[in-house]
Amino acid sequence: MSELVRFGVSLEKTLLEKFDKFIKERNYTNRSEALRDLIRQELIKKEWLQGEDVAGTITLVYDHHKRDLQNKLTDIQHDYQKLIISTQHIHLDHDNCLEIIAARGNPANLQKLADNIKAIKGVKHGTLSMSSVGKDID
Amino acid sequence: MSELVRFGVSLEKTLLEKFDKFIKERNYTNRSEALRDLIRQELIKKEWLQGEDVAGTITLVYDHHKRDLQNKLTDIQHDYQKLIISTQHIHLDHDNCLEIIAARGNPANLQKLADNIKAIKGVKHGTLSMSSVGKDID
Amino acid sequence: MSELVRFGVSLEKTLLEKFDKFIKERNYTNRSEALRDLIRQELIKKEWLQGEDVAGTITLVYDHHKRDLQNKLTDIQHDYQKLIISTQHIHLDHDNCLEIIAARGNPANLQKLADNIKAIKGVKHGTLSMSSVGKDID
Amino acid sequence: MSELVRFGVSLEKTLLEKFDKFIKERNYTNRSEALRDLIRQELIKKEWLQGEDVAGTITLVYDHHKRDLQNKLTDIQHDYQKLIISTQHIHLDHDNCLEIIAARGNPANLQKLADNIKAIKGVKHGTLSMSSVGKDID
Repeated sequence: MSELVRFGVSLEKTLLEKFDKFIKERNYTNRSEALRDLIRQELIKKEWLQGEDVAGTITLVYDHHKRDLQNKLTDIQHDYQKLIISTQHIHLDHDNCLEIIAARGNPANLQKLADNIKAIKGVKHGTLSMSSVGKDID
Repeated sequence: MSELVRFGVSLEKTLLEKFDKFIKERNYTNRSEALRDLIRQELIKKEWLQGEDVAGTITLVYDHHKRDLQNKLTDIQHDYQKLIISTQHIHLDHDNCLEIIAARGNPANLQKLADNIKAIKGVKHGTLSMSSVGKDID
Repeated sequence: MSELVRFGVSLEKTLLEKFDKFIKERNYTNRSEALRDLIRQELIKKEWLQGEDVAGTITLVYDHHKRDLQNKLTDIQHDYQKLIISTQHIHLDHDNCLEIIAARGNPANLQKLADNIKAIKGVKHGTLSMSSVGKDID
Repeated sequence: MSELVRFGVSLEKTLLEKFDKFIKERNYTNRSEALRDLIRQELIKKEWLQGEDVAGTITLVYDHHKRDLQNKLTDIQHDYQKLIISTQHIHLDHDNCLEIIAARGNPANLQKLADNIKAIKGVKHGTLSMSSVGKDID
């Protein structure tokens, strides 16, 4: 963890009042903590455009009865095994599964992995959540 | 314009360095100006969820040769005329038009207007850009 | 306008029922029209990642009393004049202006133009709406 | 799984060619499978606006050395325990952790849970990925 630096910020009084209300609604401890979050959000967008090493979560919903689906899912995960850290599997009901894949690597490859998984017949929905490996945002 | 208030912010040194690099890349004058922008972005997201009076831009691409398209577009704009401020029309090529509608009002109604326009046969693409009437973000 | 081609699609009965409800809510004329829209949305996302010639709308809110703001805005627009097609200006209230810039060109340059404008002191909010020049989505 | 229904779709020839190229790039088996995905994406957006029972993934990056962070994280998770199904934890490096929370319930409550977690001091980044419990999208 890096040392803290303090600096001054100027804001319009009325804007600051609205920001303080926002901070309260979201339960932030203080202004610095809220501003840190806003800054990091922007840095992570940048990492996904220009960076080399990011983390991401792929969330899938599928019907496990679909023929061959689980084989294909496993095949793809092995093709991209260097990217995949671990997976979490949840039985939503008799038919539906939620599978969450934690991945790390080059942003373009993570996107490709997510696209390939979404395209499997029987996968009803897939999202890629763009996160960070943490070390470039503190 | 509201008076300026000054307050202190604490950030990790390494995070601040990355933020300063971001500020330079985006040509912000100083940290306060960049932070103001990040804060306002969040407040505008909130306005569109909870507010009553927002501004928005609807951008359309369509082929003006499509039968009845322009009639329908005009009909809808009259149905929602209280929301629409003005439009701008650009001839992209022989067939394609870009039309940009400036609108203001209740967020749910702006969304409905945009949905109705997107659904017109011949409208190839439509987006709603969520902006603000300005008075609640300064 | 290109000739129409007809082909068959298989959907789960229950999914089709939900899609038909969605079509009705959004006022689409028929299923083909709704599917065309969903397809074009994806193609435009692709154009902005890989294409060369796109259209976009930059929406700004600013306080015109801010010193030098309008000069800077004009300066930047001249720097990028090859990208800018036209602008539309709306007086929201005594202080606030909504300005909508129609632009066309390389996606990375449009993004840079939008970033530069957002960074001007006094610009309260700026968005870039990603659209298309129309010819590659029909 | 519901029975399949077949129906005809009309598309402009040139649009269909671009869609077929898109399908190939994304590795979809056939047009129906790609269209199903586009339809479900829209239905899930609707579920998050109007629905009652959705699934979501909250992805966090944090520094586990931050004092009290893990206590607070556990406290909040217990406050919302009815929403949380399971969590997955990954050690990114000496300092940084990636934690992925699978959740299910009312969309507004999931959003509140995610906001509360993001606001904890030391959580560097948090995203909420909006997914589905599967049963209303097939």
